[in-house]
Amino acid sequence: MNQPQQPSIAVIGLGLLGASLGMALRGGACRRIGWTRRANIRRWALDCDVLDATDDDVETVLQEADLTLIALPIPEIISFLRRHAGAWRPGTVVSDLGSVKSGVMAAARESLTGRGVHFVGGHPMAGTEKSGPESAFPELYANADVFVCPFPDSPEFAVERVEAFWRSIGTRTTRIPADRHDDLVAHTSHVLHILASALAVSILDAPDERTKQERFSGCATGFRDTSRIASSNPLMWREIIEANRSAVLRAMGDFELCYEKMKKMIETGDFNAFEREFAHGKLLRDSWIEYKNR
Amino acid sequence: MNQPQQPSIAVIGLGLLGASLGMALRGGACRRIGWTRRANIRRWALDCDVLDATDDDVETVLQEADLTLIALPIPEIISFLRRHAGAWRPGTVVSDLGSVKSGVMAAARESLTGRGVHFVGGHPMAGTEKSGPESAFPELYANADVFVCPFPDSPEFAVERVEAFWRSIGTRTTRIPADRHDDLVAHTSHVLHILASALAVSILDAPDERTKQERFSGCATGFRDTSRIASSNPLMWREIIEANRSAVLRAMGDFELCYEKMKKMIETGDFNAFEREFAHGKLLRDSWIEYKNR
Repeated sequence: MNQPQQPSIAVIGLGLLGASLGMALRGGACRRIGWTRRANIRRWALDCDVLDATDDDVETVLQEADLTLIALPIPEIISFLRRHAGAWRPGTVVSDLGSVKSGVMAAARESLTGRGVHFVGGHPMAGTEKSGPESAFPELYANADVFVCPFPDSPEFAVERVEAFWRSIGTRTTRIPADRHDDLVAHTSHVLHILASALAVSILDAPDERTKQERFSGCATGFRDTSRIASSNPLMWREIIEANRSAVLRAMGDFELCYEKMKKMIETGDFNAFEREFAHGKLLRDSWIEYKNR
Repeated sequence: MNQPQQPSIAVIGLGLLGASLGMALRGGACRRIGWTRRANIRRWALDCDVLDATDDDVETVLQEADLTLIALPIPEIISFLRRHAGAWRPGTVVSDLGSVKSGVMAAARESLTGRGVHFVGGHPMAGTEKSGPESAFPELYANADVFVCPFPDSPEFAVERVEAFWRSIGTRTTRIPADRHDDLVAHTSHVLHILASALAVSILDAPDERTKQERFSGCATGFRDTSRIASSNPLMWREIIEANRSAVLRAMGDFELCYEKMKKMIETGDFNAFEREFAHGKLLRDSWIEYKNR
């Protein structure tokens, strides 16, 4: 690879998130370098203008990077940091796109300390129920919120490099400590996947064929949307929830309080209270929709 | 109103469901007559080609109908049947679009028996989180499933008239007894509204302002879709769940079994089992998507 003049951004992993990132950076001010395990996907990335350059050897890519974005599953981010910690140039900044930050940041601290390489965690609130490079699209991150998780002693320039990158592709960034982030996403994302999966099973795994047929007919757009994320990748969600178990259990507890409260209203026939509670949820959700569309 | 030559279909109530029905019937082989409480909406329906004719007096409309479709909230369907039972011509067929059938059909049995007027319950699995005539659109029923609930002694011609009507606007019909229908929709629709509402409250009604701000940022497309129906009309959903309380509580129990099973796997750290269960839900939902797109 020739040395570029522009800042070089390395994208590691070209699944839905990594490949969409390369597409979102098209025509921008940076040189997009990157790497993924499968050689045919690396070739596809060059052919389809997802990357400007790649190399068979990942460490050659890392050595050129001013900013590295690791877009791998959580266990692989951790093993990647451990295996390749010595490859980065001192002064470079490394970030990731993992859905849970505590384990990744502990691994970064352990692997990169003393090397002059600065890790700042990142997590874009973007994705679909699909996965793989074939599901990637350039607008995935449009208008998304991105959480940026520095260490308490992260140098300001490193945090700003990560924030500036995300803002350059039209996202909004929020700084948040890793533990606070993990509790947050357990509530806003992880618990939803458990709910969607449990309801898909409880509705569609019917006790007999006739009921199953009727349930398939009886599900409409409400079911389609409420259960959409139950069609997500099972391994990926196992890894995310495994990496964030205690926060996920707390978020499940918070959901259960609200659920049990509504159930009690139905059991006791207090439908005035039920209507008020439903209106409360509607008001909250409608104000969230307004916030996202602002 | 002049007597028409084509069969006359009366639509009673011009909210989302009734007005969309008038739009779906545009250019069809029937004469669309109808009525709704507010005179300005009756005028709007004529101006916007939602109805071919209306009248200030609802009973004048009912007297002309070969098939009447009552698209009102459940308590109003029941009071409408009681108040206007004497207005229909003998031999005519009356149906409705209510989400719960048992109460409506008991009221129909009580009000219409001995009058030669045939009631057959109906329920299209179509709707959005919006309501009112301003939310209506002609494609609402495209490819929808519609449940048709006859009495055990309903004459075949009456059931077929209702089925033929629904098929004429591109829906699929399934015959099902009222009690079986009510258990079915408690599972495929009603329980989802309680889940969506409980999770909207549990996520967005945060303990403090900073957490609330972070939760608003942290919710993305997964939350948007999983919670969409929490933005539905609170009064309408109070009435539906109130009318179907025991079946809704059964459906909640079925959901809780699946939810508690997944929770136990997370608590005990059995993530192999969790991944298998998530894959099971994905398989079921993916096969439902295939069924709906067939």
